[in-house]
Amino acid sequence: MSADEERRLARVALTWLAEPGTRAVHRLVERLGPVAALGLLLDGGSPDGWLHTTVAARSAAGDARAVAAEALERADRLGARLVTPDDEEWPARVASLSALHLPDVSRRVDGETAPPLCFWVRGSWPLGEALERSVAVVGARAATGYGQHVATELGYGLAERDWTVVSGGAFGIDAAAHRGALNAGGLTVAVLACGLDRPYPIGNTALFDRIAETGLMVSEWPPGAEPLRPRFLIRNRVIAGGTLGTVVVEASARSGATQTARRAIYANRVAMVVPGPVTSAMSVGTHEFLREHPKARLVTGVAHVLEEVGRIGADLAPLARGPQRPADTLDDDARSLLEALPRRGAMGVDRLSARAGVDVRTALRKLSLLEELSMVVRRDDGYALAPLAKPKRGKPATAATETSA
Amino acid sequence: MSADEERRLARVALTWLAEPGTRAVHRLVERLGPVAALGLLLDGGSPDGWLHTTVAARSAAGDARAVAAEALERADRLGARLVTPDDEEWPARVASLSALHLPDVSRRVDGETAPPLCFWVRGSWPLGEALERSVAVVGARAATGYGQHVATELGYGLAERDWTVVSGGAFGIDAAAHRGALNAGGLTVAVLACGLDRPYPIGNTALFDRIAETGLMVSEWPPGAEPLRPRFLIRNRVIAGGTLGTVVVEASARSGATQTARRAIYANRVAMVVPGPVTSAMSVGTHEFLREHPKARLVTGVAHVLEEVGRIGADLAPLARGPQRPADTLDDDARSLLEALPRRGAMGVDRLSARAGVDVRTALRKLSLLEELSMVVRRDDGYALAPLAKPKRGKPATAATETSA
Repeated sequence: MSADEERRLARVALTWLAEPGTRAVHRLVERLGPVAALGLLLDGGSPDGWLHTTVAARSAAGDARAVAAEALERADRLGARLVTPDDEEWPARVASLSALHLPDVSRRVDGETAPPLCFWVRGSWPLGEALERSVAVVGARAATGYGQHVATELGYGLAERDWTVVSGGAFGIDAAAHRGALNAGGLTVAVLACGLDRPYPIGNTALFDRIAETGLMVSEWPPGAEPLRPRFLIRNRVIAGGTLGTVVVEASARSGATQTARRAIYANRVAMVVPGPVTSAMSVGTHEFLREHPKARLVTGVAHVLEEVGRIGADLAPLARGPQRPADTLDDDARSLLEALPRRGAMGVDRLSARAGVDVRTALRKLSLLEELSMVVRRDDGYALAPLAKPKRGKPATAATETSA
Repeated sequence: MSADEERRLARVALTWLAEPGTRAVHRLVERLGPVAALGLLLDGGSPDGWLHTTVAARSAAGDARAVAAEALERADRLGARLVTPDDEEWPARVASLSALHLPDVSRRVDGETAPPLCFWVRGSWPLGEALERSVAVVGARAATGYGQHVATELGYGLAERDWTVVSGGAFGIDAAAHRGALNAGGLTVAVLACGLDRPYPIGNTALFDRIAETGLMVSEWPPGAEPLRPRFLIRNRVIAGGTLGTVVVEASARSGATQTARRAIYANRVAMVVPGPVTSAMSVGTHEFLREHPKARLVTGVAHVLEEVGRIGADLAPLARGPQRPADTLDDDARSLLEALPRRGAMGVDRLSARAGVDVRTALRKLSLLEELSMVVRRDDGYALAPLAKPKRGKPATAATETSA
């Protein structure tokens, strides 16, 4: 087994020994790497008693490394792959989950708030790229016709504007959001709280298959893992932290959907809420959330959502009614140059102007304009996108070539 | 004519010469008193050109004093009375409107933001007392069934808890709020933008008659005045400033109802908004308002409204789920004493204890408890209510005796 394979196996074994998100485990991996961390835990060297008990109980049930090897084989047969921080497609944004502190949760167990150790992924898009421009749309399972209509419209509108729609694959709002995105021919990601070989709920199996075809099915749990109740809350932090913002459409009092929005706020993401009739039980949770969280934003449609999460002018241009934003005024040449810039790294003016179909003189003029607008930065090796100004992503095929699986 | 009658006549003449709320006129009255202010204006001594033109135009149309005298006679025949700051029933709260500055409005004309010079009132309640514990409920004329349902419930719930429901007497939400209050046997006040002899809209005539029977019909404009378009905005500042808070139920984009809520915010009142389905055009204005005004509070029912405007524990006790408030813990004796305290001025312990049916010793003990809770203040002449801690008001008859018309 190569060193790389050993690291991957260790990460899987660790998520089997203790639930994903367990902070003590994450700290060990940060300090020692996954292989040594696994060795330490299996040798009884857990840093705290609770983790020691958990690991001992699991180890009594099976050999962690053997279970992990079997999970990898099962995933292979399923057409699913393991994604770890060593992979190029690892979604960098989830690292910020290490700053997530949920006061009430961390008091109970040392779990739920550390970044994921690995993801199981089904679907051809590179995970990181799929999540780069993504918004979560979540809500009640027992959604009303109103809520499903709104969620479908949101899913459709976001996908149509090249945003990935992330949700939890549940009945009601989640399913409506996924469907809206699929209907727009867009990219949607279902983040599950169980193994990808047994997606829950089974009533959504057809939907899951459609999602896997054009989007992604994602889970932190290895194949075979059951959708246990606490896992949904653990999963919610990934939905909240892996996206740029979370929209809640319908939620009853104290629902799981508002828990995801809460995690979004604590992870410094945008938490957005669609209001509803005050006479509807399915809007009680959304209104409560808006009243209790001054940071939460009331949104009534895709235009408002894009205002919150939209980073590049292109998202806002067709909808903005307020004051003009820099990118609203970009001409075709500047736009082409922006789109020609590589996602990572810099590119010289010659190659860039050729790629954008703009003559070098014009390219230079437009690039300094873009620089002035802080959308582009000049570096020794050419021009690069400024950290927050990213172009629309390319087609799946291109993207897959760039990053590789 | 007595000096008092002359002052009253002058106030009426001034509101005829320039629209109510004109700041230059209000400043003159503050400085010189109404009689001298009227004399100055009629003699062509207006402090600014715009006011000069207005007064000249009106004077050409008639003799201000004669018009005012006729208006007073007309009101008398109508069973309406003039209320001025010299009257005990003057609603003290409207004085705070002098601090109201609406940036866009004051730029156009020097109007609309000064406190009223006088009110015309139909109905037996003393105006000031009716407005003391009052909430405005306003909204779209073209209300949906949803909005009318919510407004009726709010009107009913507020009236049931002894709050006065103030609105503008318009079709739709206004009418629903008035009706809700009437159905609860409560007090409701319609503030109009025209003379009380020609209440607008005439389709609400039956409603207005019901309101005048048990509540109040109020206007700043003398009998005969027409409901001209700009007068509604001028009127709105009274609805916003005369109450403790304004609730908007349904409003289309840029509606008059949100203008009232805006005035509430600028007048340091609570602006509250009931959300609705994002698919309804009649909720676009309410959601816009919530998004644009961080001070606006989302409310879903009477409990939330009382949380915002409720000043004494009695309003909150049956509904509060949060931390206990001082008055929640009051016993019957303390409550009786609070209720026995006069609305204005102080009362000695002997009289107070007799009125409350509590022995003097207990009264002294409870009064120092109330003092500690900042609900009561001790003064040389006895005990008085603390500025913000007011008891439930008495029956109309009692109140009328206390203040007189």
